[in-house]
Amino acid sequence: MSARYYWEEGNGFDSATAILAGDEAHHLIRVMRAKPGDEFLLFDGKGFEYRARATEIGRGSVRLQVVETREICNDPEIELSAAVALPKGDRQKWLIEKLTELGVRRFIPLEVERADIKTDDGVLARLRRQVVEASKQCGRSRFMEILPPMPRREAAAACRKESDCEPLCMLAHPISDGEFGQWSFRDFLSRGFQDGRWTMAKHLFLAVGPVGGFSDREVREAVDDGWPILDLGKEVYRVETAAITAAALFLHLGD
Amino acid sequence: MSARYYWEEGNGFDSATAILAGDEAHHLIRVMRAKPGDEFLLFDGKGFEYRARATEIGRGSVRLQVVETREICNDPEIELSAAVALPKGDRQKWLIEKLTELGVRRFIPLEVERADIKTDDGVLARLRRQVVEASKQCGRSRFMEILPPMPRREAAAACRKESDCEPLCMLAHPISDGEFGQWSFRDFLSRGFQDGRWTMAKHLFLAVGPVGGFSDREVREAVDDGWPILDLGKEVYRVETAAITAAALFLHLGD
Repeated sequence: MSARYYWEEGNGFDSATAILAGDEAHHLIRVMRAKPGDEFLLFDGKGFEYRARATEIGRGSVRLQVVETREICNDPEIELSAAVALPKGDRQKWLIEKLTELGVRRFIPLEVERADIKTDDGVLARLRRQVVEASKQCGRSRFMEILPPMPRREAAAACRKESDCEPLCMLAHPISDGEFGQWSFRDFLSRGFQDGRWTMAKHLFLAVGPVGGFSDREVREAVDDGWPILDLGKEVYRVETAAITAAALFLHLGD
Repeated sequence: MSARYYWEEGNGFDSATAILAGDEAHHLIRVMRAKPGDEFLLFDGKGFEYRARATEIGRGSVRLQVVETREICNDPEIELSAAVALPKGDRQKWLIEKLTELGVRRFIPLEVERADIKTDDGVLARLRRQVVEASKQCGRSRFMEILPPMPRREAAAACRKESDCEPLCMLAHPISDGEFGQWSFRDFLSRGFQDGRWTMAKHLFLAVGPVGGFSDREVREAVDDGWPILDLGKEVYRVETAAITAAALFLHLGD
């Protein structure tokens, strides 16, 4: 795949003028040594790619003329909204990179009782930058959306509002004594995978708890709300492992 | 889960004497401030856990008396052998950590045409240390085995020899023009998941290529060997993402 440059203001129009600044311009000027007339591939993270020709190379910015606009539809068929209690440091970056690669539609830093981390605007901005970087790498054309931090019910309501499709809501929680009636991935398959197709909801909302897991009260509330509890098995997964595993499992059930 | 200490020489015997040195002893002495009579949980990475009582605290070692031995069987039902062209740096560490958490049985650094990295004894020793660390964290009782680097056919033969179970061998390769007859995960499900159970081989061998993928020749040779080509979808996954995704998918098909 050839390099793609992020054009924030792209909106799907043909024949527009694109002005890139910052890191994107730096790469074009210093690394690619762009000259007027050179062609590059831009994308806007909203599902459009642009073939564009450099017209003017400034000191820290590049002006390009769009010569072709293409709408790219490579979102997975399954729409996954992931609300995850953010892990710390590098694990956070990895989580976002992998969920972006896997094709998760939207991400919400989940507010939980055993909160580990404060999610302020700086953190959200960093998560969004990581989505841009990972998308460039893996070829995603529509960014994973980062919503502000919310507790479980509000997060599910926000995702319901943003989608055409009513979500099947789940809570990931490791096996305990079975009192919550956990479902394994196989249980989901047995119910939902019929005649070679996933026949349950095409929009899934998944909540993943912090280090130490959801509190009993949080799990019980989800059960009372009628949410199935997804049990990912005997090993104790780290937060990012649970989220990545569940995303891999459900996103690969679609076309 | 309470902390577990790695006892390399454990072999499933009761009433043995365990001597821990190095990092394990350091943690017991400096962090836990172990005193004679204190009880700790040891594990040997071969499937046994030991309740053991400290009898002597040395300067850099701790002697313990095993008071109870338990065999722990929490390997996934599906046996997965993963042969992966090692990525670099942090990505390598992440790959090993996640495959350990997911319960992969054995790992082989895959020798490929577009080799990215030299896997010497130092690298193998580091990978094994990472398996130990990740196993402590996630509660695995049997270590993911790290085999020496090998090309594809030799790796599959080595895994066949180590297992009671004939492996179904696959090569992960991103979609191209379909000339190799790729299978999606859904194709595997359609064929192998019947009446709520995985009915195909319980031992899977998966080869994952380097950055840039397997060469056409490598893919064609695998096809000629009768290996199905696993297509993980439209996005371009990084090496570690492909391996982790495939491991998540197949390991969750078992009990």
